[in-house]
Amino acid sequence: MKKHNFSAGPSILTQEVLQKASEAVLNFNNDNLSILEISHRSPAFVAVMEKARSLVLELLDLENKGYSVLFLQGGASLQFLMTPYNLMKENGKAAYLDTGAWSSKAIKEAKLFGEVEVVASSKDKNYNYIPKNYTIPSAVDYIHCTSNNTIYGTQIKEFPKSDNVLVCDMSSDIFSRQLDFTQFDVIYAGAQKNMGPAGTTLAVVKESILGKTGRTIPSMLDYQVHISKDSMFNTPPVFAVYTSMLTLQWLKEKGGIAAIEKINNAKAELLYSEIDNNPLFKGVAEKEDRSNMNVTFVLTDDSLKDKFDSMCKEADISGINGHRSVGGYRASIYNALPLESVQVLVNVMKALK
Amino acid sequence: MKKHNFSAGPSILTQEVLQKASEAVLNFNNDNLSILEISHRSPAFVAVMEKARSLVLELLDLENKGYSVLFLQGGASLQFLMTPYNLMKENGKAAYLDTGAWSSKAIKEAKLFGEVEVVASSKDKNYNYIPKNYTIPSAVDYIHCTSNNTIYGTQIKEFPKSDNVLVCDMSSDIFSRQLDFTQFDVIYAGAQKNMGPAGTTLAVVKESILGKTGRTIPSMLDYQVHISKDSMFNTPPVFAVYTSMLTLQWLKEKGGIAAIEKINNAKAELLYSEIDNNPLFKGVAEKEDRSNMNVTFVLTDDSLKDKFDSMCKEADISGINGHRSVGGYRASIYNALPLESVQVLVNVMKALK
Repeated sequence: MKKHNFSAGPSILTQEVLQKASEAVLNFNNDNLSILEISHRSPAFVAVMEKARSLVLELLDLENKGYSVLFLQGGASLQFLMTPYNLMKENGKAAYLDTGAWSSKAIKEAKLFGEVEVVASSKDKNYNYIPKNYTIPSAVDYIHCTSNNTIYGTQIKEFPKSDNVLVCDMSSDIFSRQLDFTQFDVIYAGAQKNMGPAGTTLAVVKESILGKTGRTIPSMLDYQVHISKDSMFNTPPVFAVYTSMLTLQWLKEKGGIAAIEKINNAKAELLYSEIDNNPLFKGVAEKEDRSNMNVTFVLTDDSLKDKFDSMCKEADISGINGHRSVGGYRASIYNALPLESVQVLVNVMKALK
Repeated sequence: MKKHNFSAGPSILTQEVLQKASEAVLNFNNDNLSILEISHRSPAFVAVMEKARSLVLELLDLENKGYSVLFLQGGASLQFLMTPYNLMKENGKAAYLDTGAWSSKAIKEAKLFGEVEVVASSKDKNYNYIPKNYTIPSAVDYIHCTSNNTIYGTQIKEFPKSDNVLVCDMSSDIFSRQLDFTQFDVIYAGAQKNMGPAGTTLAVVKESILGKTGRTIPSMLDYQVHISKDSMFNTPPVFAVYTSMLTLQWLKEKGGIAAIEKINNAKAELLYSEIDNNPLFKGVAEKEDRSNMNVTFVLTDDSLKDKFDSMCKEADISGINGHRSVGGYRASIYNALPLESVQVLVNVMKALK
């Protein structure tokens, strides 16, 4: 009996993906070898890598539009460093939107490379909203934003409009909603929310923006090096890429982003409407900026905490504790979480007295 | 029926490790959740990370000697960059021993940070030996060497002796032989030979050598940042760390490095003695520098190639093609490869006519 897994990340993967991944650890491709013990240069794994890369472009509707897909290591945290290294000119400048702890970390690393202008921040209200009506300076090398803020439960609905290069950390909502992905020049995302297990990081890079900084970039941090080697400059994280490929395949079979978005919207509506209608609960994020991936809420009466926690536990609900900097609860309702799990949580909320 | 897996890397893991890893993908820790979908901050995974870190110190006999163990991402290739970043002073200098393609890559990255003196190289003979009797300049920030050279089948038996900081890339022979590991200040190794699947990189760092360069180091490249967070600065590659922990546990139960070294020596002796006694085969590496992990050899009569290849295939021998830069054959006989597999290969060699 599986739990209802609302973990913020690493987070739920579908059962059929887990089943196939588990089998591949014993016998991959019916070749009597584990996927953990074969060469990454073997035709069977090269095919996995190529399939994963092409599925990303297909799902994001970015085929034949000048984008390259990379499966890297180091998490979004290494991308915080790779983006300025690859995009900020010597003595250059970048604009950052500060919507939470992860944006702040990205800003900190970028400052090692040049001037960083924070164009807007929602820090004044512990990041419970998305800043709007900010002005973007015209002469910047790029603009950086974080599409979804896991900790606070906020999500950008309208992205910065400008002629500048636009970089987006989509770690916690990639593949969850339809967007015009051509508005972005770099999209990066740690796999461990909507794509796969921890251990690989997706980078989708528009090739024409590269090679313009005048910097000498160390090989492992250079998008162009990884692109020139088809994402196999060095040994890739084989199992994480394979499991991501399985998840991307599952998403495609389900009807792609358009189909999963409908389900994601239904899950979010069900849960937010309970939060709004049940006097025992209150949402944390501003309504217009609410995330469809991470739903943050608190009890209006703290004395009910132990009761609610034990009711959740009894219902096999797992991973809904809020982040320590926000408190309360956070239900992460990523692509792989079924509507039924949200219904179970809502039923518990309704039953609380 | 499993194959005899001589793959150079990612490479063979023991069947019991694969079995446990496969089970954990479905149900980890009897908690009805996959190890791929739980928080890396959960007590169950924090215990895995701590166990893996302490097993490394125990197996290397480095407990309570000022070393920290990190499970990072990015492979040895990222360490090529992290070592100079953390150890080479501004306008500093480092000494490198060039024993193959991987040493050369390390040298290339280090040159971005300061002066690199290549104290010796075996490039003149396509790296088929280990240089000796070289002089190490006294005023260097560190010396870098590669203990085992997978492609060429050579292995350092005597490490550079000096008062300088000593850094060693042990990707392909860590945990395979007894050494006084206190002679090293940094040991790093991609997991995918003797420790686990591709996707994590071990770094064992003597803390007292850090913080002396005067450089500002990006967080993800700073050993001190990772040490201060107990190797959890950002989401670690959970599954790769877990499988590495299982392999380290297996090695400890087998009797540790002392016990596996005996088996490794027996495997190497069996195979090298066939190479030396069978007129149809010839070793590639100089005898005194032969690796006990990667055994490189060629046929003395190329016309037998198709026959030998098909005999190997029939015997379920996998992964013995030599690297393209050397040609011939390479049998990788890492810790997890049983003596029986070497015997099967030797039998095929004996049967070749």
